[in-house]
Amino acid sequence: MNKKPVELVVVGSIGLDTVATPWERREEILGGSVSFACAGASFFAPVGMVGVVGSDFGKSDLDIYRGFGFDLDGLQVREGRTFRWSGVYEDNMDNRRTLSTELNVFAEFQPELPESYRQAPFLFLANIAPALQLSVLKQIRKPRFIVADTMDLWINVALADLKKVIRRVDLLTLNESEARHLTGERMLIKAARKLLGWGPQHILIKKGEHGAVLFSKRGTFLMPAYPLEEVNDPTGAGDTFAGGFIGQLAAGGKVTEEALRRAMLVGTVMASFNVEAFSLNRLRKLTRREFTRRIGEFKKMLLV
Amino acid sequence: MNKKPVELVVVGSIGLDTVATPWERREEILGGSVSFACAGASFFAPVGMVGVVGSDFGKSDLDIYRGFGFDLDGLQVREGRTFRWSGVYEDNMDNRRTLSTELNVFAEFQPELPESYRQAPFLFLANIAPALQLSVLKQIRKPRFIVADTMDLWINVALADLKKVIRRVDLLTLNESEARHLTGERMLIKAARKLLGWGPQHILIKKGEHGAVLFSKRGTFLMPAYPLEEVNDPTGAGDTFAGGFIGQLAAGGKVTEEALRRAMLVGTVMASFNVEAFSLNRLRKLTRREFTRRIGEFKKMLLV
Repeated sequence: MNKKPVELVVVGSIGLDTVATPWERREEILGGSVSFACAGASFFAPVGMVGVVGSDFGKSDLDIYRGFGFDLDGLQVREGRTFRWSGVYEDNMDNRRTLSTELNVFAEFQPELPESYRQAPFLFLANIAPALQLSVLKQIRKPRFIVADTMDLWINVALADLKKVIRRVDLLTLNESEARHLTGERMLIKAARKLLGWGPQHILIKKGEHGAVLFSKRGTFLMPAYPLEEVNDPTGAGDTFAGGFIGQLAAGGKVTEEALRRAMLVGTVMASFNVEAFSLNRLRKLTRREFTRRIGEFKKMLLV
Repeated sequence: MNKKPVELVVVGSIGLDTVATPWERREEILGGSVSFACAGASFFAPVGMVGVVGSDFGKSDLDIYRGFGFDLDGLQVREGRTFRWSGVYEDNMDNRRTLSTELNVFAEFQPELPESYRQAPFLFLANIAPALQLSVLKQIRKPRFIVADTMDLWINVALADLKKVIRRVDLLTLNESEARHLTGERMLIKAARKLLGWGPQHILIKKGEHGAVLFSKRGTFLMPAYPLEEVNDPTGAGDTFAGGFIGQLAAGGKVTEEALRRAMLVGTVMASFNVEAFSLNRLRKLTRREFTRRIGEFKKMLLV
C-alpha cells in the first residue's frame, strides 16, 4: 500500500484518562498530548504519531486513531499497562486538580522515529521529558520547523535539559503560568522576551479560555479564544491548539508571518471544538464544513 | 467665554484613593470612576463631569481636571470630606482587596445635570447606585447613546433598580465576574445573551488584562488587551476603557458596528496608558502622538 509521506511528526504521551467535571465523570477515555495534537493536526497534513501504549490498549481506541488517518508506524506497543491519568475540574471548571498518575509503560518510553518519519519537515515535541525530546531531535534529519511544548514538572526537575530543548527549537509553546514560572517574569511580554533570548524564533503562550499570544522576534500577535456556549471537557485543549497550529503550517509548507497568524486562528478553532466533548469525541465527528463555518464566524469577531 | 457644547456627560464617583501595590503605596491620590472615565473620554470629545467633592478637595486636583479640559459645571462642592477609598493589590497584582471606604459627601450625592448638559447626545453612567443612575436618566433630554456600568454591590443590594437601569440603556458594561454573578451563567456568551434579553442593544464585558468582549444583537467582537511591559496601578482601568470607548463614539457621532469596534480599540489603548502610573498621572502626560503610535502598534498585533 502506498501511504502519503508524513509531513508532521508528533511525539508525546498517550493515556487513558479518568476525567471528572462538576457535571460528569468519564473513566479511562482516550487522551494524552499526542492523541489530541495528532487529532488537531490530521485535518490539515499527513501526521505520524510517536508514542507508547500497553498491551491493554483497546482495539476501539486504535480504531479511533485509524479513523483520523494517523500514520501509526511510530506507535509502540509494550507489555504492561497503558499510562493512566485522573483529574478533576473544580470551581466551575476554573481549576484542574490531578488525582493520580500511573506512568506504567510510559515510564520506560524511548521514542523512536521510523525511517519514513525522519525526513518530515515539521516536528511537534508535545509535553514529555526534555531528555526524550532531545533524543527525538537527534533522529530527525531535515527539520524545517520544530515546535516544543513543556510543563511545570520539567521546569522543576529537568531545567538543564529543558533549556537545551528550548535552544534547539523554532517555537516554544507553554502556558501563561509556566512562562512566568520558567522566567520569573509576571508580565508576559517580558517573559517572552527572555525566552526569545534563549533561542527560539517564536514563543507561543497559551492562556486557556483567554486565548493565546504569539511573540516573535519581529512582532506580537494576539489571539482571543473562540467564545463557546459550553465547555464539557477542557482536557487536551492546548495540545489540540498546538496540533491544529502546526498542522496548518505543515499544510502550507512555509512559515511566514501570515502563515503563523492563520495557524493561530486554525489552532484556536480546533481547540474550541475539542472542549465541546470528552476525549476525542467531538473531533472525531468534526466535518470540514463545520470547521470552515466556525473559522468564518470567528474571523468576523476579530475584524478591527 | 464661549464653551464647546458638551457632547458626552459622565456621572460617577470622585474619590481620594490610597493605593498599595506590591511595590509602592500612594496616599489620597485623585481617583473615582468619573475621574478616570472623563480623562479617557476627554481626548476625543467635549465632556461634562457630574460628581461631588467635599470642601477638602484640593485646588491641585481641580487643576488636574482643568488641565484635561473637562467641563466642571456639573461638579458639586459640598461641606464635608471627599469620598475616600483604600485598597491593596496582592498576589502579584492579580487580586484587589478593599481596605476601607468612607463615603463622606458621596453618601448624600444627588446628581444634577446643568441645563447645558441636558441636550448632550452621549451619556455614561459610571458606577454609582442604580437609583442615582435612574435619576440622571430622567434629566437627560435627547440621548442618542447611553452606557451604564455597575458593580457587585448593586447586584446584591439594589437589583430591582439595577434592572430598571439595564432596561433603559443602550449598552451595559460590567466585569466578567459581575456578568456571571448577575446572570448565574458561567459562560460569557450565555451571560451576555441573557443580559441582551433585558433590554440593551450591546453588552460590553471587561476581562481586565485579558481584554474585553462586545456582544451585540447582531454579533460579537473580541478585543484582547494591549500587552504591557509594566503595570504600576490597575485602578481605574475599566473606567478609562469605558471613557475612551464612549468618548470615541461621541467624537464620531454615529454608533455603527464599525464605530463600536474602533471605540473598543481606542478604549483598550487608553486603559493601557492609564495603568502605567498611579491616579491620572500617565493620562495627564499622554500626547496625541503617543496615542496614535500605540494604536498603530496594537492594530498590527490584531491583524488576522
